[in-house]
Amino acid sequence: MIPRYSVEEIDKIWSDDNKFKIWFEVELAVLSAREELGQIPKGTAKSLKGIEVSAERIKEIEKKTRHDVVSFITAVGEKGGDAVRFFHQGLTSSDIGDTSFALQIKECSSIIKKDIDNVLEILKEKALQCKGLPIMGRTHGIHGEPTSLGLKFLTWYSEMKRAIERFETASKKAEYGKISGAMGNFAHLDPEVEEIALRKLNLKPEPISTQVVPRDRYAEYIFALATIGSTIEHISHEIRHLQRTEIRELEEPFKKGQKGSSAMPHKRNPILCERLSGMSRLLRSYLITAVENIILWNERDISHSSTERIYFPDAITLTVYMLRKLAFIIKDINIYKDNIEKNIWLTNGLIFSQKVLIKLLDKGVKRDEAYNIVQENAMEVWQKGGSFKEKIENDKRVKKYLNKKELKNLFDPKSYLKNEEKIFKRVLS
Amino acid sequence: MIPRYSVEEIDKIWSDDNKFKIWFEVELAVLSAREELGQIPKGTAKSLKGIEVSAERIKEIEKKTRHDVVSFITAVGEKGGDAVRFFHQGLTSSDIGDTSFALQIKECSSIIKKDIDNVLEILKEKALQCKGLPIMGRTHGIHGEPTSLGLKFLTWYSEMKRAIERFETASKKAEYGKISGAMGNFAHLDPEVEEIALRKLNLKPEPISTQVVPRDRYAEYIFALATIGSTIEHISHEIRHLQRTEIRELEEPFKKGQKGSSAMPHKRNPILCERLSGMSRLLRSYLITAVENIILWNERDISHSSTERIYFPDAITLTVYMLRKLAFIIKDINIYKDNIEKNIWLTNGLIFSQKVLIKLLDKGVKRDEAYNIVQENAMEVWQKGGSFKEKIENDKRVKKYLNKKELKNLFDPKSYLKNEEKIFKRVLS
Amino acid sequence: MIPRYSVEEIDKIWSDDNKFKIWFEVELAVLSAREELGQIPKGTAKSLKGIEVSAERIKEIEKKTRHDVVSFITAVGEKGGDAVRFFHQGLTSSDIGDTSFALQIKECSSIIKKDIDNVLEILKEKALQCKGLPIMGRTHGIHGEPTSLGLKFLTWYSEMKRAIERFETASKKAEYGKISGAMGNFAHLDPEVEEIALRKLNLKPEPISTQVVPRDRYAEYIFALATIGSTIEHISHEIRHLQRTEIRELEEPFKKGQKGSSAMPHKRNPILCERLSGMSRLLRSYLITAVENIILWNERDISHSSTERIYFPDAITLTVYMLRKLAFIIKDINIYKDNIEKNIWLTNGLIFSQKVLIKLLDKGVKRDEAYNIVQENAMEVWQKGGSFKEKIENDKRVKKYLNKKELKNLFDPKSYLKNEEKIFKRVLS
Amino acid sequence: MIPRYSVEEIDKIWSDDNKFKIWFEVELAVLSAREELGQIPKGTAKSLKGIEVSAERIKEIEKKTRHDVVSFITAVGEKGGDAVRFFHQGLTSSDIGDTSFALQIKECSSIIKKDIDNVLEILKEKALQCKGLPIMGRTHGIHGEPTSLGLKFLTWYSEMKRAIERFETASKKAEYGKISGAMGNFAHLDPEVEEIALRKLNLKPEPISTQVVPRDRYAEYIFALATIGSTIEHISHEIRHLQRTEIRELEEPFKKGQKGSSAMPHKRNPILCERLSGMSRLLRSYLITAVENIILWNERDISHSSTERIYFPDAITLTVYMLRKLAFIIKDINIYKDNIEKNIWLTNGLIFSQKVLIKLLDKGVKRDEAYNIVQENAMEVWQKGGSFKEKIENDKRVKKYLNKKELKNLFDPKSYLKNEEKIFKRVLS
Repeated sequence: MIPRYSVEEIDKIWSDDNKFKIWFEVELAVLSAREELGQIPKGTAKSLKGIEVSAERIKEIEKKTRHDVVSFITAVGEKGGDAVRFFHQGLTSSDIGDTSFALQIKECSSIIKKDIDNVLEILKEKALQCKGLPIMGRTHGIHGEPTSLGLKFLTWYSEMKRAIERFETASKKAEYGKISGAMGNFAHLDPEVEEIALRKLNLKPEPISTQVVPRDRYAEYIFALATIGSTIEHISHEIRHLQRTEIRELEEPFKKGQKGSSAMPHKRNPILCERLSGMSRLLRSYLITAVENIILWNERDISHSSTERIYFPDAITLTVYMLRKLAFIIKDINIYKDNIEKNIWLTNGLIFSQKVLIKLLDKGVKRDEAYNIVQENAMEVWQKGGSFKEKIENDKRVKKYLNKKELKNLFDPKSYLKNEEKIFKRVLS
Repeated sequence: MIPRYSVEEIDKIWSDDNKFKIWFEVELAVLSAREELGQIPKGTAKSLKGIEVSAERIKEIEKKTRHDVVSFITAVGEKGGDAVRFFHQGLTSSDIGDTSFALQIKECSSIIKKDIDNVLEILKEKALQCKGLPIMGRTHGIHGEPTSLGLKFLTWYSEMKRAIERFETASKKAEYGKISGAMGNFAHLDPEVEEIALRKLNLKPEPISTQVVPRDRYAEYIFALATIGSTIEHISHEIRHLQRTEIRELEEPFKKGQKGSSAMPHKRNPILCERLSGMSRLLRSYLITAVENIILWNERDISHSSTERIYFPDAITLTVYMLRKLAFIIKDINIYKDNIEKNIWLTNGLIFSQKVLIKLLDKGVKRDEAYNIVQENAMEVWQKGGSFKEKIENDKRVKKYLNKKELKNLFDPKSYLKNEEKIFKRVLS
Repeated sequence: MIPRYSVEEIDKIWSDDNKFKIWFEVELAVLSAREELGQIPKGTAKSLKGIEVSAERIKEIEKKTRHDVVSFITAVGEKGGDAVRFFHQGLTSSDIGDTSFALQIKECSSIIKKDIDNVLEILKEKALQCKGLPIMGRTHGIHGEPTSLGLKFLTWYSEMKRAIERFETASKKAEYGKISGAMGNFAHLDPEVEEIALRKLNLKPEPISTQVVPRDRYAEYIFALATIGSTIEHISHEIRHLQRTEIRELEEPFKKGQKGSSAMPHKRNPILCERLSGMSRLLRSYLITAVENIILWNERDISHSSTERIYFPDAITLTVYMLRKLAFIIKDINIYKDNIEKNIWLTNGLIFSQKVLIKLLDKGVKRDEAYNIVQENAMEVWQKGGSFKEKIENDKRVKKYLNKKELKNLFDPKSYLKNEEKIFKRVLS
Repeated sequence: MIPRYSVEEIDKIWSDDNKFKIWFEVELAVLSAREELGQIPKGTAKSLKGIEVSAERIKEIEKKTRHDVVSFITAVGEKGGDAVRFFHQGLTSSDIGDTSFALQIKECSSIIKKDIDNVLEILKEKALQCKGLPIMGRTHGIHGEPTSLGLKFLTWYSEMKRAIERFETASKKAEYGKISGAMGNFAHLDPEVEEIALRKLNLKPEPISTQVVPRDRYAEYIFALATIGSTIEHISHEIRHLQRTEIRELEEPFKKGQKGSSAMPHKRNPILCERLSGMSRLLRSYLITAVENIILWNERDISHSSTERIYFPDAITLTVYMLRKLAFIIKDINIYKDNIEKNIWLTNGLIFSQKVLIKLLDKGVKRDEAYNIVQENAMEVWQKGGSFKEKIENDKRVKKYLNKKELKNLFDPKSYLKNEEKIFKRVLS
């Protein structure tokens, strides 16, 4: 990832230093397992533990060998003593590579989970804060009926919650290693070695692997990230819509010193939200590669490898970056209550017509008559302006059926929220 | 394509009847070519011309043979006389299949081109109609400076023009057939047969084919469709934005009898534009398959075939459907001039601040002072309301530098359009 | 879907007749719920049950209204008696549309599940049948070490099992309906109506909906299909590789009467497997649309709708079609044991070199010497031909360490399968 | 791009240092244009030319302003003298950003073109070298009829040539800048400034821009890269197929010291080709983002920006990396003529059956009899082994029609290449 959008913790996990450190841990776990099983002398792993191999030295060797794991083993061999002869014995490069990959992903997953949890917490808080605050509901971009801002946040919370469940399922499925040898059939080391070694590493053994762990696991992981991204985009899109000059109900926080335009104080652009919208496209893109990677040849081909070196850390970095920006945005989001209320009344009350109609029907007015009453008044307001509320209140036909209190209630945006509490309960319990 | 979005002319082109008719034409063209070259008796093609083979009979045979071209030849064989022994001689199925595919695509291309031309014509007309009509320009969804509605239409025209150029390039590249035999090396029929036959069919010969025409040609074709789609989506998106209740500058036409909501007369939803936005996603999707199809095995594998039977007609149908809906929308689009003007003044004139600033600098006011004047007034308007125009007009510091006429001109939206004419010339000439 | 690849059962589910039937059921479920809650007279639902509305009539009305649900209600209204006035009362179109969509998907899901189960059963059977049958393992397309054909089938079984788990998770998440009204806030009908009605329909209520059910549910569903497709492609690819003329270990079944080439009896092409490879590309493509559909505007825009009408039935049809073809292929797959064995020995035994090396090390031979022994012999075989097995057996240095029985075992392909049983247990238990 | 796959020249182009250098050039070009037009004092540009602004300083300022262009201008302001007041006057950030982007792309394009030319040269050379060398042609992975290795290379050459034409078209379309101001309507600077400035920079003016250059230009560019990638994958796939142990006709070059396996000398894996196959997936992926970026809001939103910072340099880097690896592979590719010949005879001559059949028909043998002769012999060979050639030569029925020379010619792989020369001419002239 380019520095501009990098996340330090994620960078570290995918750094060469960390990778080689993890490779070493995996090798030691295998040695320990073999010790336990009496296959190699006790103390072998321990005797190697102290070895320090520099990434630099490995890179140097790789220039010749063109094979990273071979270079790593060579570098270890240069440092280690007698026990080195057991090092990597019976293993294939992917035993180390894929098992380590699972460990790196796992480290990333725990960061991602924390960040989603944080976002969830913030969304919940906002939802609760804005419960009962009527806001215009819009379908097709056109005013529908009032809903509440709390429900908006709650919708996002609910979608993000599904996203974390999906991610948790996927991340668990990515926590599989393999120490099953070149063809995955344990020809040289027994399954017991794998089981013990992976247990030590807190991974599960792939029930049946080839030379590699099957790639559908990672496709599912990337899908989980892509849908986190799309949910973030869903939210960022909404904020961008509601931040439009004509609407201006919400506004992403604007940092002190941030250059909008001092001469144009209204020019507060939702650039963070726009960035999130863009980044989500990239996350979606990676999905294609991730799914294509499932189709490897025979017991493996290595076509997936270069792509995973590139897009896997990038996809994770973007996800974390986006989650953090989203948390920042939601936490300090500007809510313009005046505009929210003003917009509800923008159509001079026409948005309440459905409710007037239903009420009249409830009161026993015949369908045709009820429709006539509502349509006539609505059309007049639509064409000539004026207040639909006043027109209805003054319509003699209406007065026959509805008293003042009932009339007032009809035009109360809050009346659309009578079931809000129940929805909150459904989602939060 | 499902009936709801079908286009009759396109359906016909891809119907079995038409396909078999074209196959037959290709076979006859080869026979004619061979006659010309003296390889088979004169009159062979002519003697077969009258044969009528029913799609039904071919399908029946295919149930056994599981091979469509073989079944077609068998069915012809059942009908033909002596000359039948030359029919399909030396050819491979794909000689017929791919050459016919090129002919079907070509038929479609001419329809698509007509539809794009129609859209272009309508866009140009609207652009000219709306030249000089100031409308709010928006970046990031936030008011920027005025521009003109004519320029908006002209932008779409310009983008669509690039789309048709791209499509014309791509469609020409799809007009390649091949009569080069099973391995593409003319082992059984000479290149001269191909050249003559394809000339008769108004196609060009693939310079070097394998068993099939290389699939990058079709990937480019689909890319051209996908970008036509994205340009349509670009336009439909804009209309959806500008049809928002709060903005309502543009509105897609609303058919008589169309059910929006009679009780809610404001509820005129841009459902056509939304449909176009959705369909564009599908066109984009096909792109992935189209590009993946390039990578066939050896002298060919047949993995592309099933996909092309499905997505190729679908992609073309969607494109034509979308172009026609777009033409309908743009032609009768509702333009609400009052709202357009109202929106320009929505920020109480703040959008003109940049221009005031530049004017003051032009007049020799020092940068710091000019900024102070503009910022102070702008901020006051932003925070307390009032008219920026009036504030500036009454600011004594301003009066020192600008006279009445200059002041008036500063707040004239049309003044932003001084170069509009030149842009129109650049684009339309 | 084009007729060539249609699946009748799936077609029926997505037919207009079935759709309107389900819409009617949903409407009746809502009426029943309201009866239970005492909101409308007992017997309302029952009194409407008998009404028959033709798809034709609805289509006719739709030509004017351009709105399918409105037309449906109108058509019902034409037929129904007094109780009609409660029909659709308080509902929004998407209450019916999305709830019915969930029911249609559910019907499809149960078909898909059966088909995956069938595939799983067949794969398991084949795996058990071919347990212990050594076959060349290949990485990078190059011979590695022997594995077993049983393990190959078992790998596919295991990947397909993850696919069905993924699908089951996803299909459960698609079984959510909504009867929450135009803004999803139950402004006109209470959540209790939704809960009862959906319970009757065996669906779950979306905890919080807008006008529609959130689209991430369907993205996950399509992802599940896309990965089923990719797993099928993974398998079909492998068969295509192993059916190559030079390898010919496996061969997809060849139907009697199927036209390969009688003059070229070796020309048995894996056309079904190739078709599956192609179709999988299409399934992957739809994924992009499915994920993009998550990002709807505000309380909904309708851009997803046209795409779902097209790609959703298509994606499901392709999945079922592919599963059935795969079942057919695996069930009657031709296994050429002679070729399988011949290929193992193709490198004159070089593939056993790793094992000789390890054995020598085990016997205490020094690393350098062991390497020398193996490399010298291997290189000679590689460059000049001859049997690596014989060379090793006759190498005096080897004889010092290994007796006849040990030597024989070294070159026994079955010896690579010593842990096969354990792997089968891991996967099948 | 991660260091492992970086390309130094491309890195430099996209480095901050180079970006700021180009931004500065664009600003100066605008100043020069304005000088020419007499809008600002002569010598303004010259007086600023020497200024050196460090990337570091700009980054520092950006931490506060969160806007890269603003920071750049501020940094210039800190250094410049009096003339600074004209710097960036009347411009919007994207005037600089997009124009510079075009210049960076142009620098990259010339590198890419050189690399494609190099690949083309190498492919042509190989094609000419291998002209007349018969090799098995394969369809569906199954032996078809002989073709030549020269034709294989020539197919790739031809496809790559289309790729470069496509790329040249696309890269020309990306050489458009814009100096049209915040709304693209030249409200503050006239089109003449744009025209002169861009001419100085060797770019063309976008006929009508908004705040930005329309993104369909870049989508086409990325499509061109994606299809270069797919063509490379097409080639790498073929090499991987032909490098299979059982086939081993081609082999990617194996560097000295490269670690395959010394104990397994046959284990020469096509890892470079596999890497190219993988990378091509990534290039395809970016396409989705590139096309989605077309759909910006109104006069622009900034969602494209973050994605372009990431995927644009990455896509270009991958393309160059891949082209270079491909050049390396093709240049030194190992061609195993013995295996190529051996494989032609693998089916004991059955692949010639089609030709025998045609010859018999040519000689006037009746269709039925000819078929019987060929089928009987072919089937016997297929089922019991033996040489089809010998069987045909000894078939009395055949001898009646064909003399020795004719028979010999029938089984000559070179006879399939009689039109090879003509194909070469078509492609290379």
